[in-house]
Amino acid sequence: MKLITFAAAGQARLGRVEGNEIIPLPPSLGSMIDVIIGGPKLRAQAAATVGRPLLLSNVHLLPPLPRPGKILAIGMNYADHVRETGAPMPTRQIWFCKQPTAANGPFDPILLPKASTQVDYEAELVVVIGRGGRHISRAEAPGAVFGYCVGNDVSARDWQMATSQWMLGKSFDTHAPFGPWITTADEVPNPHTLAIRAFVNGDKRQESNTANLVFDIWDQIAHVSEVMTLEPGDLIFTGTPGGVGLGMNPQVYLKDGDVVRVEIDKLGAIEAVCRGE
Amino acid sequence: MKLITFAAAGQARLGRVEGNEIIPLPPSLGSMIDVIIGGPKLRAQAAATVGRPLLLSNVHLLPPLPRPGKILAIGMNYADHVRETGAPMPTRQIWFCKQPTAANGPFDPILLPKASTQVDYEAELVVVIGRGGRHISRAEAPGAVFGYCVGNDVSARDWQMATSQWMLGKSFDTHAPFGPWITTADEVPNPHTLAIRAFVNGDKRQESNTANLVFDIWDQIAHVSEVMTLEPGDLIFTGTPGGVGLGMNPQVYLKDGDVVRVEIDKLGAIEAVCRGE
Repeated sequence: MKLITFAAAGQARLGRVEGNEIIPLPPSLGSMIDVIIGGPKLRAQAAATVGRPLLLSNVHLLPPLPRPGKILAIGMNYADHVRETGAPMPTRQIWFCKQPTAANGPFDPILLPKASTQVDYEAELVVVIGRGGRHISRAEAPGAVFGYCVGNDVSARDWQMATSQWMLGKSFDTHAPFGPWITTADEVPNPHTLAIRAFVNGDKRQESNTANLVFDIWDQIAHVSEVMTLEPGDLIFTGTPGGVGLGMNPQVYLKDGDVVRVEIDKLGAIEAVCRGE
Repeated sequence: MKLITFAAAGQARLGRVEGNEIIPLPPSLGSMIDVIIGGPKLRAQAAATVGRPLLLSNVHLLPPLPRPGKILAIGMNYADHVRETGAPMPTRQIWFCKQPTAANGPFDPILLPKASTQVDYEAELVVVIGRGGRHISRAEAPGAVFGYCVGNDVSARDWQMATSQWMLGKSFDTHAPFGPWITTADEVPNPHTLAIRAFVNGDKRQESNTANLVFDIWDQIAHVSEVMTLEPGDLIFTGTPGGVGLGMNPQVYLKDGDVVRVEIDKLGAIEAVCRGE
Protein backbone atom coordinates (compact mmCIF):
# COMPACT_ATOMS: atom_id res chain seq x y z
CA MET A 1 0.00 0.00 0.00
CA LYS A 2 1.16 3.51 -0.83
CA LEU A 3 -0.10 6.19 1.54
CA ILE A 4 0.00 9.93 0.95
CA THR A 5 -0.89 13.05 2.83
CA PHE A 6 -2.37 15.67 0.51
CA ALA A 7 -3.88 19.12 0.82
CA ALA A 8 -7.63 19.40 0.31
CA ALA A 9 -9.42 22.67 1.02
CA GLY A 10 -6.62 23.77 3.31
CA GLN A 11 -6.69 20.55 5.31
CA ALA A 12 -4.27 17.65 5.37
CA ARG A 13 -6.03 14.50 4.14
CA LEU A 14 -4.90 10.92 3.86
CA GLY A 15 -5.04 9.00 0.61
CA ARG A 16 -4.09 5.69 -0.93
CA VAL A 17 -2.28 5.66 -4.25
CA GLU A 18 -3.55 3.34 -7.01
CA GLY A 19 -1.53 3.85 -10.16
CA ASN A 20 -2.12 7.41 -11.35
CA GLU A 21 -5.02 7.92 -9.00
CA ILE A 22 -5.61 8.33 -5.32
CA ILE A 23 -8.46 7.13 -3.16
CA PRO A 24 -9.10 9.71 -0.40
CA LEU A 25 -9.37 8.05 3.00
CA PRO A 26 -12.07 9.05 5.48
CA PRO A 27 -11.12 11.67 8.10
CA SER A 28 -12.18 9.11 10.72
CA LEU A 29 -8.89 7.31 10.07
CA GLY A 30 -7.08 10.38 11.40
CA SER A 31 -3.71 11.45 10.08
CA MET A 32 -0.71 9.41 8.97
CA ILE A 33 0.63 9.13 12.49
CA ASP A 34 -2.70 7.69 13.64
CA VAL A 35 -2.55 5.03 10.93
CA ILE A 36 1.03 4.20 11.88
CA ILE A 37 0.14 3.91 15.57
CA GLY A 38 -3.11 2.13 14.75
CA GLY A 39 -1.29 -0.92 13.48
CA PRO A 40 -2.78 -3.68 11.32
CA LYS A 41 -6.41 -2.75 12.03
CA LEU A 42 -6.18 0.82 10.71
CA ARG A 43 -3.93 -0.31 7.87
CA ALA A 44 -6.60 -2.80 6.85
CA GLN A 45 -9.24 -0.07 6.91
CA ALA A 46 -7.02 2.14 4.77
CA ALA A 47 -6.51 -0.71 2.30
CA ALA A 48 -10.21 -1.55 2.13
CA THR A 49 -11.53 1.98 1.60
CA VAL A 50 -13.34 2.48 -1.67
CA GLY A 51 -14.36 5.83 -3.06
CA ARG A 52 -14.23 8.16 -5.94
CA PRO A 53 -10.64 8.48 -7.10
CA LEU A 54 -8.81 11.71 -7.80
CA LEU A 55 -6.02 12.12 -10.28
CA LEU A 56 -2.69 12.04 -8.45
CA SER A 57 -1.45 14.83 -10.69
CA ASN A 58 -4.28 17.06 -9.47
CA VAL A 59 -3.46 16.97 -5.77
CA HIS A 60 -0.81 18.80 -3.79
CA LEU A 61 1.23 16.25 -1.90
CA LEU A 62 2.35 17.23 1.58
CA PRO A 63 5.15 15.47 3.45
CA PRO A 64 3.64 12.01 4.09
CA LEU A 65 4.15 12.76 7.76
CA PRO A 66 3.68 16.52 8.04
CA ARG A 67 5.54 16.56 11.34
CA PRO A 68 7.96 13.67 11.77
CA GLY A 69 9.05 12.83 15.32
CA LYS A 70 12.80 12.51 15.11
CA ILE A 71 14.73 12.73 11.85
CA LEU A 72 17.83 10.64 12.41
CA ALA A 73 20.46 10.40 9.72
CA ILE A 74 23.58 8.31 9.22
CA GLY A 75 26.61 9.77 7.48
CA MET A 76 29.33 8.18 5.36
CA ASN A 77 27.25 5.13 4.58
CA TYR A 78 28.09 4.35 0.93
CA ALA A 79 31.74 3.61 0.18
CA ASP A 80 31.91 5.78 -2.95
CA HIS A 81 30.49 8.77 -1.04
CA VAL A 82 33.02 8.28 1.75
CA ARG A 83 35.81 8.34 -0.85
CA GLU A 84 34.55 11.52 -2.52
CA THR A 85 34.51 13.39 0.80
CA GLY A 86 38.08 12.34 1.60
CA ALA A 87 36.99 10.95 4.98
CA PRO A 88 38.25 7.61 6.32
CA MET A 89 35.97 4.60 5.89
CA PRO A 90 33.91 4.44 9.09
CA THR A 91 34.25 1.46 11.38
CA ARG A 92 31.41 2.71 13.53
CA GLN A 93 28.08 4.24 12.53
CA ILE A 94 28.18 8.06 12.40
CA TRP A 95 24.83 9.58 13.38
CA PHE A 96 23.58 13.12 13.17
CA CYS A 97 20.09 14.50 12.71
CA LYS A 98 17.92 16.95 10.90
CA GLN A 99 15.38 18.98 12.86
CA PRO A 100 11.72 18.11 12.20
CA THR A 101 11.02 21.69 11.12
CA ALA A 102 13.05 20.87 7.98
CA ALA A 103 10.33 18.49 6.72
CA ASN A 104 9.19 19.41 3.21
CA GLY A 105 6.69 18.10 0.69
CA PRO A 106 7.97 15.83 -2.09
CA PHE A 107 7.39 18.40 -4.85
CA ASP A 108 7.66 21.62 -2.86
CA PRO A 109 10.49 24.09 -3.50
CA ILE A 110 13.79 23.73 -1.69
CA LEU A 111 14.70 27.15 -0.32
CA LEU A 112 18.27 28.30 -0.85
CA PRO A 113 18.98 30.36 2.28
CA LYS A 114 20.56 33.77 1.99
CA ALA A 115 23.03 32.61 4.63
CA SER A 116 24.46 29.75 2.52
CA THR A 117 26.17 29.52 -0.86
CA GLN A 118 26.75 25.75 -0.74
CA VAL A 119 23.43 23.93 -0.75
CA ASP A 120 23.83 20.33 -1.91
CA TYR A 121 21.58 17.31 -2.54
CA GLU A 122 21.84 13.81 -1.07
CA ALA A 123 19.59 11.06 -2.43
CA GLU A 124 18.54 8.75 0.39
CA LEU A 125 16.27 5.87 1.24
CA VAL A 126 14.12 6.94 4.20
CA VAL A 127 12.79 4.47 6.77
CA VAL A 128 9.54 5.31 8.57
CA ILE A 129 9.42 3.75 12.03
CA GLY A 130 6.24 1.92 12.93
CA ARG A 131 6.15 0.05 16.20
CA GLY A 132 9.58 1.29 17.25
CA GLY A 133 10.95 0.53 20.69
CA ARG A 134 14.25 0.41 22.55
CA HIS A 135 16.99 -2.21 22.38
CA ILE A 136 15.68 -3.55 19.09
CA SER A 137 17.91 -6.38 17.90
CA ARG A 138 19.02 -6.75 14.31
CA ALA A 139 16.61 -9.69 14.00
CA GLU A 140 13.70 -7.67 15.39
CA ALA A 141 14.46 -4.56 13.34
CA PRO A 142 12.26 -5.35 10.30
CA GLY A 143 9.27 -5.50 12.64
CA ALA A 144 9.93 -1.95 13.80
CA VAL A 145 9.47 -0.47 10.31
CA PHE A 146 6.19 0.91 8.97
CA GLY A 147 7.42 1.70 5.48
CA TYR A 148 9.83 3.49 3.17
CA CYS A 149 10.11 6.79 1.29
CA VAL A 150 12.43 8.60 -1.06
CA GLY A 151 14.30 11.43 0.62
CA ASN A 152 16.73 14.23 -0.08
CA ASP A 153 19.09 15.05 2.79
CA VAL A 154 19.63 18.61 1.59
CA SER A 155 22.83 19.95 3.13
CA ALA A 156 24.21 23.48 3.45
CA ARG A 157 27.87 22.46 3.27
CA ASP A 158 29.25 25.80 4.48
CA TRP A 159 27.16 25.54 7.64
CA GLN A 160 27.71 21.79 7.97
CA MET A 161 31.49 22.21 7.92
CA ALA A 162 31.71 25.51 9.84
CA THR A 163 32.02 23.65 13.14
CA SER A 164 32.62 20.03 14.14
CA GLN A 165 28.89 19.36 14.38
CA TRP A 166 26.82 18.96 11.20
CA MET A 167 23.33 19.50 12.65
CA LEU A 168 22.72 23.14 11.71
CA GLY A 169 23.89 22.60 8.12
CA LYS A 170 21.43 19.73 7.85
CA SER A 171 18.45 21.49 9.39
CA PHE A 172 17.50 24.51 7.29
CA ASP A 173 13.74 24.80 6.80
CA THR A 174 12.60 22.84 3.68
CA HIS A 175 15.83 20.79 3.64
CA ALA A 176 14.22 17.45 4.44
CA PRO A 177 11.92 16.71 1.49
CA PHE A 178 10.57 13.16 1.51
CA GLY A 179 7.82 11.13 -0.11
CA PRO A 180 6.16 11.03 -2.54
CA TRP A 181 4.28 8.48 -0.41
CA ILE A 182 5.03 5.91 2.25
CA THR A 183 5.27 2.46 0.69
CA THR A 184 4.34 0.06 3.47
CA ALA A 185 6.97 -2.48 4.43
CA ASP A 186 4.96 -5.46 3.18
CA GLU A 187 5.55 -4.22 -0.38
CA VAL A 188 9.31 -4.00 0.15
CA PRO A 189 10.36 -7.48 1.26
CA ASN A 190 14.03 -6.55 0.86
CA PRO A 191 14.88 -2.85 1.16
CA HIS A 192 18.54 -3.63 0.38
CA THR A 193 18.01 -4.23 -3.34
CA LEU A 194 16.71 -0.84 -4.50
CA ALA A 195 18.30 1.26 -7.23
CA ILE A 196 18.64 4.91 -6.17
CA ARG A 197 19.39 7.90 -8.41
CA ALA A 198 19.57 11.69 -8.22
CA PHE A 199 19.32 14.13 -11.12
CA VAL A 200 19.95 17.87 -11.31
CA ASN A 201 18.26 19.50 -14.30
CA GLY A 202 18.05 16.05 -15.88
CA ASP A 203 21.76 15.22 -15.46
CA LYS A 204 22.26 12.02 -13.53
CA ARG A 205 24.51 12.83 -10.57
CA GLN A 206 24.04 9.88 -8.23
CA GLU A 207 23.35 6.24 -9.08
CA SER A 208 23.72 3.32 -6.73
CA ASN A 209 21.75 0.62 -4.99
CA THR A 210 20.79 0.19 -1.35
CA ALA A 211 22.72 -3.10 -1.54
CA ASN A 212 25.79 -0.87 -1.19
CA LEU A 213 24.97 0.53 2.26
CA VAL A 214 28.00 0.22 4.54
CA PHE A 215 25.76 -0.33 7.59
CA ASP A 216 22.42 -1.79 6.55
CA ILE A 217 19.02 -0.71 7.85
CA TRP A 218 18.77 -3.45 10.48
CA ASP A 219 22.16 -2.58 11.93
CA GLN A 220 21.15 1.08 11.94
CA ILE A 221 17.95 0.41 13.89
CA ALA A 222 19.77 -1.85 16.36
CA HIS A 223 22.47 0.79 16.93
CA VAL A 224 20.30 3.86 17.48
CA SER A 225 17.80 1.94 19.60
CA GLU A 226 20.63 1.05 21.99
CA VAL A 227 20.56 4.77 22.79
CA MET A 228 17.00 5.96 22.43
CA THR A 229 13.43 4.83 22.09
CA LEU A 230 12.34 4.84 18.46
CA GLU A 231 8.76 5.97 18.15
CA PRO A 232 6.05 5.68 15.51
CA GLY A 233 6.65 8.35 12.90
CA ASP A 234 10.37 8.75 13.47
CA LEU A 235 12.37 8.88 10.23
CA ILE A 236 15.78 7.45 9.44
CA PHE A 237 17.72 8.87 6.51
CA THR A 238 19.96 5.93 5.62
CA GLY A 239 22.89 7.62 3.86
CA THR A 240 23.73 8.87 0.37
CA PRO A 241 25.84 7.39 -2.44
CA GLY A 242 28.64 9.16 -4.27
CA GLY A 243 27.97 11.97 -6.70
CA VAL A 244 27.02 14.90 -4.51
CA GLY A 245 28.04 18.42 -5.50
CA LEU A 246 30.62 18.52 -2.69
CA GLY A 247 32.46 15.64 -4.36
CA MET A 248 32.65 17.18 -7.84
CA ASN A 249 35.77 18.89 -9.13
CA PRO A 250 35.18 21.78 -9.10
CA GLN A 251 32.40 21.59 -6.53
CA VAL A 252 28.98 22.53 -7.88
CA TYR A 253 26.17 23.69 -5.63
CA LEU A 254 22.46 24.17 -6.21
CA LYS A 255 21.32 27.47 -7.65
CA ASP A 256 18.03 29.25 -8.11
CA GLY A 257 15.89 27.41 -10.65
CA ASP A 258 17.72 24.08 -10.46
CA VAL A 259 15.45 21.04 -10.44
CA VAL A 260 16.53 18.19 -8.19
CA ARG A 261 14.96 14.78 -8.64
CA VAL A 262 15.55 11.73 -6.45
CA GLU A 263 14.14 8.36 -7.40
CA ILE A 264 14.23 4.92 -5.87
CA ASP A 265 12.91 1.85 -7.66
CA LYS A 266 9.54 0.69 -6.27
CA LEU A 267 9.25 3.79 -4.03
CA GLY A 268 8.71 6.54 -6.62
CA ALA A 269 10.38 9.90 -7.10
CA ILE A 270 10.44 13.34 -5.50
CA GLU A 271 11.34 16.47 -7.41
CA ALA A 272 11.91 20.03 -6.28
CA VAL A 273 12.80 23.32 -7.81
CA CYS A 274 15.35 25.35 -5.87
CA ARG A 275 14.33 28.88 -5.00
CA GLY A 276 16.27 31.68 -3.40
CA GLU A 277 14.92 32.50 0.03
CA MET B 1 4.93 32.77 37.46
CA LYS B 2 6.30 29.28 37.95
CA LEU B 3 4.48 26.59 36.00
CA ILE B 4 4.77 22.85 36.54
CA THR B 5 3.42 19.73 34.96
CA PHE B 6 2.65 17.09 37.56
CA ALA B 7 1.15 13.63 37.68
CA ALA B 8 -2.34 13.32 39.16
CA ALA B 9 -4.21 10.02 38.94
CA GLY B 10 -2.11 8.95 35.98
CA GLN B 11 -2.75 12.17 34.08
CA ALA B 12 -0.46 15.08 33.41
CA ARG B 13 -1.84 18.22 35.05
CA LEU B 14 -0.72 21.81 35.04
CA GLY B 15 -0.01 23.72 38.20
CA ARG B 16 1.28 27.04 39.42
CA VAL B 17 3.90 27.11 42.16
CA GLU B 18 3.39 29.41 45.15
CA GLY B 19 6.18 28.92 47.66
CA ASN B 20 5.99 25.36 48.93
CA GLU B 21 2.56 24.80 47.46
CA ILE B 22 1.02 24.40 44.06
CA ILE B 23 -2.31 25.56 42.75
CA PRO B 24 -3.65 22.97 40.28
CA LEU B 25 -4.84 24.63 37.07
CA PRO B 26 -8.09 23.61 35.40
CA PRO B 27 -7.85 21.00 32.62
CA SER B 28 -9.61 23.55 30.39
CA LEU B 29 -6.28 25.38 30.14
CA GLY B 30 -4.85 22.33 28.35
CA SER B 31 -1.25 21.28 28.73
CA MET B 32 1.92 23.37 29.00
CA ILE B 33 2.29 23.67 25.24
CA ASP B 34 -1.26 25.06 25.03
CA VAL B 35 -0.41 27.72 27.59
CA ILE B 36 2.79 28.57 25.71
CA ILE B 37 0.93 28.86 22.41
CA GLY B 38 -2.00 30.61 24.08
CA GLY B 39 0.07 33.68 24.83
CA PRO B 40 -0.81 36.44 27.31
CA LYS B 41 -4.48 35.45 27.59
CA LEU B 42 -3.88 31.90 28.81
CA ARG B 43 -0.96 33.05 30.94
CA ALA B 44 -3.28 35.51 32.64
CA GLN B 45 -5.83 32.75 33.28
CA ALA B 46 -3.10 30.56 34.75
CA ALA B 47 -1.96 33.43 36.99
CA ALA B 48 -5.49 34.22 38.15
CA THR B 49 -6.59 30.68 38.99
CA VAL B 50 -7.46 30.17 42.64
CA GLY B 51 -8.05 26.82 44.24
CA ARG B 52 -7.13 24.48 46.98
CA PRO B 53 -3.36 24.21 47.13
CA LEU B 54 -1.37 20.99 47.30
CA LEU B 55 1.99 20.62 48.96
CA LEU B 56 4.70 20.73 46.30
CA SER B 57 6.52 17.95 48.13
CA ASN B 58 3.49 15.69 47.69
CA VAL B 59 3.28 15.77 43.91
CA HIS B 60 5.35 13.96 41.29
CA LEU B 61 6.79 16.54 38.93
CA LEU B 62 6.92 15.56 35.27
CA PRO B 63 9.12 17.35 32.73
CA PRO B 64 7.46 20.80 32.53
CA LEU B 65 6.98 20.05 28.85
CA PRO B 66 6.48 16.29 28.69
CA ARG B 67 7.40 16.28 25.01
CA PRO B 68 9.59 19.18 23.95
CA GLY B 69 9.70 20.00 20.25
CA LYS B 70 13.35 20.37 19.45
CA ILE B 71 16.08 20.18 22.08
CA LEU B 72 18.89 22.30 20.71
CA ALA B 73 22.16 22.57 22.60
CA ILE B 74 25.25 24.69 22.26
CA GLY B 75 28.67 23.26 23.11
CA MET B 76 31.82 24.88 24.43
CA ASN B 77 29.99 27.91 25.74
CA TYR B 78 31.78 28.69 29.04
CA ALA B 79 35.49 29.48 28.77
CA ASP B 80 36.52 27.31 31.73
CA HIS B 81 34.66 24.31 30.27
CA VAL B 82 36.36 24.82 26.91
CA ARG B 83 39.74 24.79 28.65
CA GLU B 84 39.02 21.59 30.61
CA THR B 85 38.10 19.72 27.41
CA GLY B 86 41.31 20.80 25.70
CA ALA B 87 39.35 22.17 22.73
CA PRO B 88 40.17 25.51 21.11
CA MET B 89 38.06 28.51 22.13
CA PRO B 90 35.20 28.65 19.62
CA THR B 91 34.90 31.65 17.31
CA ARG B 92 31.60 30.37 16.01
CA GLN B 93 28.67 28.81 17.86
CA ILE B 94 28.83 24.99 17.95
CA TRP B 95 25.37 23.44 17.91
CA PHE B 96 24.25 19.87 18.43
CA CYS B 97 21.03 18.46 19.81
CA LYS B 98 19.44 16.00 22.14
CA GLN B 99 16.50 13.94 20.93
CA PRO B 100 13.14 14.78 22.54
CA THR B 101 12.79 11.17 23.77
CA ALA B 102 15.57 12.03 26.24
CA ALA B 103 13.26 14.38 28.19
CA ASN B 104 13.11 13.46 31.88
CA GLY B 105 11.36 14.73 34.97
CA PRO B 106 13.31 17.02 37.30
CA PHE B 107 13.52 14.45 40.11
CA ASP B 108 13.28 11.22 38.12
CA PRO B 109 16.21 8.78 37.97
CA ILE B 110 18.90 9.19 35.34
CA LEU B 111 19.45 5.77 33.78
CA LEU B 112 23.04 4.66 33.33
CA PRO B 113 22.92 2.62 30.13
CA LYS B 114 24.56 -0.80 29.97
CA ALA B 115 26.21 0.40 26.77
CA SER B 116 28.12 3.27 28.43
CA THR B 117 30.66 3.53 31.25
CA GLN B 118 31.16 7.31 30.96
CA VAL B 119 27.95 9.08 31.87
CA ASP B 120 28.60 12.69 32.89
CA TYR B 121 26.56 15.70 34.09
CA GLU B 122 26.40 19.19 32.62
CA ALA B 123 24.55 21.90 34.54
CA GLU B 124 22.77 24.22 32.11
CA LEU B 125 20.32 27.07 31.91
CA VAL B 126 17.47 25.96 29.62
CA VAL B 127 15.48 28.42 27.51
CA VAL B 128 11.87 27.54 26.64
CA ILE B 129 10.83 29.09 23.34
CA GLY B 130 7.49 30.89 23.33
CA ARG B 131 6.52 32.77 20.19
CA GLY B 132 9.56 31.56 18.26
CA GLY B 133 9.96 32.32 14.59
CA ARG B 134 12.63 32.48 11.91
CA HIS B 135 15.30 35.13 11.35
CA ILE B 136 14.89 36.48 14.87
CA SER B 137 17.31 39.32 15.44
CA ARG B 138 19.33 39.69 18.60
CA ALA B 139 17.08 42.62 19.55
CA GLU B 140 13.91 40.56 18.98
CA ALA B 141 15.23 37.46 20.75
CA PRO B 142 13.92 38.24 24.27
CA GLY B 143 10.41 38.35 22.82
CA ALA B 144 10.78 34.80 21.51
CA VAL B 145 11.28 33.32 25.00
CA PHE B 146 8.49 31.91 27.17
CA GLY B 147 10.62 31.12 30.19
CA TYR B 148 13.57 29.38 31.78
CA CYS B 149 14.38 26.08 33.49
CA VAL B 150 17.26 24.30 35.15
CA GLY B 151 18.66 21.47 33.01
CA ASN B 152 21.22 18.71 33.03
CA ASP B 153 22.73 17.91 29.63
CA VAL B 154 23.60 14.36 30.64
CA SER B 155 26.28 13.04 28.29
CA ALA B 156 27.57 9.54 27.62
CA ARG B 157 31.14 10.61 26.80
CA ASP B 158 32.18 7.27 25.27
CA TRP B 159 29.31 7.50 22.78
CA GLN B 160 29.72 11.26 22.31
CA MET B 161 33.37 10.89 21.34
CA ALA B 162 33.11 7.58 19.45
CA THR B 163 32.52 9.45 16.18
CA SER B 164 32.79 13.06 15.07
CA GLN B 165 29.12 13.68 15.84
CA TRP B 166 27.96 14.07 19.44
CA MET B 167 24.23 13.50 18.99
CA LEU B 168 23.94 9.83 20.05
CA GLY B 169 26.00 10.40 23.20
CA LYS B 170 23.68 13.25 24.12
CA SER B 171 20.40 11.45 23.45
CA PHE B 172 20.08 8.43 25.72
CA ASP B 173 16.61 8.10 27.19
CA THR B 174 16.32 10.05 30.50
CA HIS B 175 19.41 12.14 29.69
CA ALA B 176 17.61 15.46 29.34
CA PRO B 177 16.16 16.19 32.80
CA PHE B 178 14.83 19.71 33.15
CA GLY B 179 12.60 21.70 35.45
CA PRO B 180 11.64 21.81 38.23
CA TRP B 181 9.24 24.34 36.68
CA ILE B 182 9.22 26.92 33.94
CA THR B 183 9.84 30.36 35.37
CA THR B 184 8.18 32.75 32.95
CA ALA B 185 10.43 35.31 31.32
CA ASP B 186 8.78 38.28 33.07
CA GLU B 187 10.32 37.03 36.35
CA VAL B 188 13.80 36.86 34.83
CA PRO B 189 14.49 40.34 33.49
CA ASN B 190 18.14 39.46 32.90
CA PRO B 191 18.92 35.76 32.38
CA HIS B 192 22.64 36.58 32.14
CA THR B 193 23.12 37.18 35.86
CA LEU B 194 22.21 33.79 37.33
CA ALA B 195 24.51 31.71 39.52
CA ILE B 196 24.58 28.04 38.41
CA ARG B 197 25.93 25.07 40.36
CA ALA B 198 26.09 21.28 40.13
CA PHE B 199 26.65 18.84 42.97
CA VAL B 200 27.36 15.11 42.98
CA ASN B 201 26.55 13.48 46.31
CA GLY B 202 26.72 16.93 47.89
CA ASP B 203 30.18 17.80 46.50
CA LYS B 204 30.11 20.99 44.51
CA ARG B 205 31.49 20.21 41.07
CA GLN B 206 30.38 23.15 38.94
CA GLU B 207 29.91 26.77 39.94
CA SER B 208 29.62 29.68 37.59
CA ASN B 209 27.21 32.36 36.45
CA THR B 210 25.33 32.78 33.20
CA ALA B 211 27.19 36.10 32.88
CA ASN B 212 30.08 33.91 31.70
CA LEU B 213 28.37 32.49 28.60
CA VAL B 214 30.69 32.82 25.59
CA PHE B 215 27.70 33.35 23.26
CA ASP B 216 24.76 34.77 25.16
CA ILE B 217 21.14 33.66 24.80
CA TRP B 218 20.17 36.40 22.35
CA ASP B 219 23.06 35.56 20.03
CA GLN B 220 22.10 31.89 20.30
CA ILE B 221 18.51 32.54 19.27
CA ALA B 222 19.59 34.80 16.42
CA HIS B 223 22.05 32.20 15.13
CA VAL B 224 19.85 29.10 15.17
CA SER B 225 16.86 30.98 13.80
CA GLU B 226 18.93 31.91 10.75
CA VAL B 227 18.69 28.19 9.99
CA MET B 228 15.38 26.96 11.29
CA THR B 229 12.01 28.05 12.57
CA LEU B 230 11.93 28.04 16.35
CA GLU B 231 8.57 26.87 17.61
CA PRO B 232 6.68 27.15 20.89
CA GLY B 233 7.97 24.47 23.23
CA ASP B 234 11.41 24.11 21.68
CA LEU B 235 14.19 24.02 24.27
CA ILE B 236 17.67 25.48 24.13
CA PHE B 237 20.35 24.08 26.44
CA THR B 238 22.71 27.03 26.68
CA GLY B 239 26.01 25.37 27.59
CA THR B 240 27.77 24.14 30.72
CA PRO B 241 30.56 25.64 32.87
CA GLY B 242 33.76 23.91 33.87
CA GLY B 243 33.78 21.09 36.40
CA VAL B 244 32.31 18.14 34.54
CA GLY B 245 33.60 14.62 35.20
CA LEU B 246 35.33 14.57 31.81
CA GLY B 247 37.52 17.46 32.93
CA MET B 248 38.66 15.93 36.23
CA ASN B 249 42.02 14.26 36.65
CA PRO B 250 41.49 11.36 36.76
CA GLN B 251 38.13 11.52 35.03
CA VAL B 252 35.19 10.53 37.24
CA TYR B 253 31.88 9.35 35.84
CA LEU B 254 28.46 8.83 37.37
CA LYS B 255 27.79 5.52 39.06
CA ASP B 256 24.76 3.72 40.38
CA GLY B 257 23.36 5.54 43.40
CA ASP B 258 25.04 8.88 42.74
CA VAL B 259 22.81 11.90 43.34
CA VAL B 260 23.22 14.77 40.89
CA ARG B 261 21.80 18.15 41.75
CA VAL B 262 21.75 21.21 39.49
CA GLU B 263 20.60 24.56 40.80
CA ILE B 264 20.25 28.00 39.31
CA ASP B 265 19.44 31.05 41.40
CA LYS B 266 15.80 32.18 40.96
CA LEU B 267 14.95 29.08 38.87
CA GLY B 268 15.14 26.33 41.48
CA ALA B 269 16.92 22.99 41.51
CA ILE B 270 16.58 19.55 39.94
CA GLU B 271 17.99 16.42 41.52
CA ALA B 272 18.27 12.87 40.27
CA VAL B 273 19.58 9.58 41.51
CA CYS B 274 21.54 7.59 38.95
CA ARG B 275 20.36 4.04 38.38
CA GLY B 276 21.83 1.26 36.31
CA GLU B 277 19.63 0.41 33.38
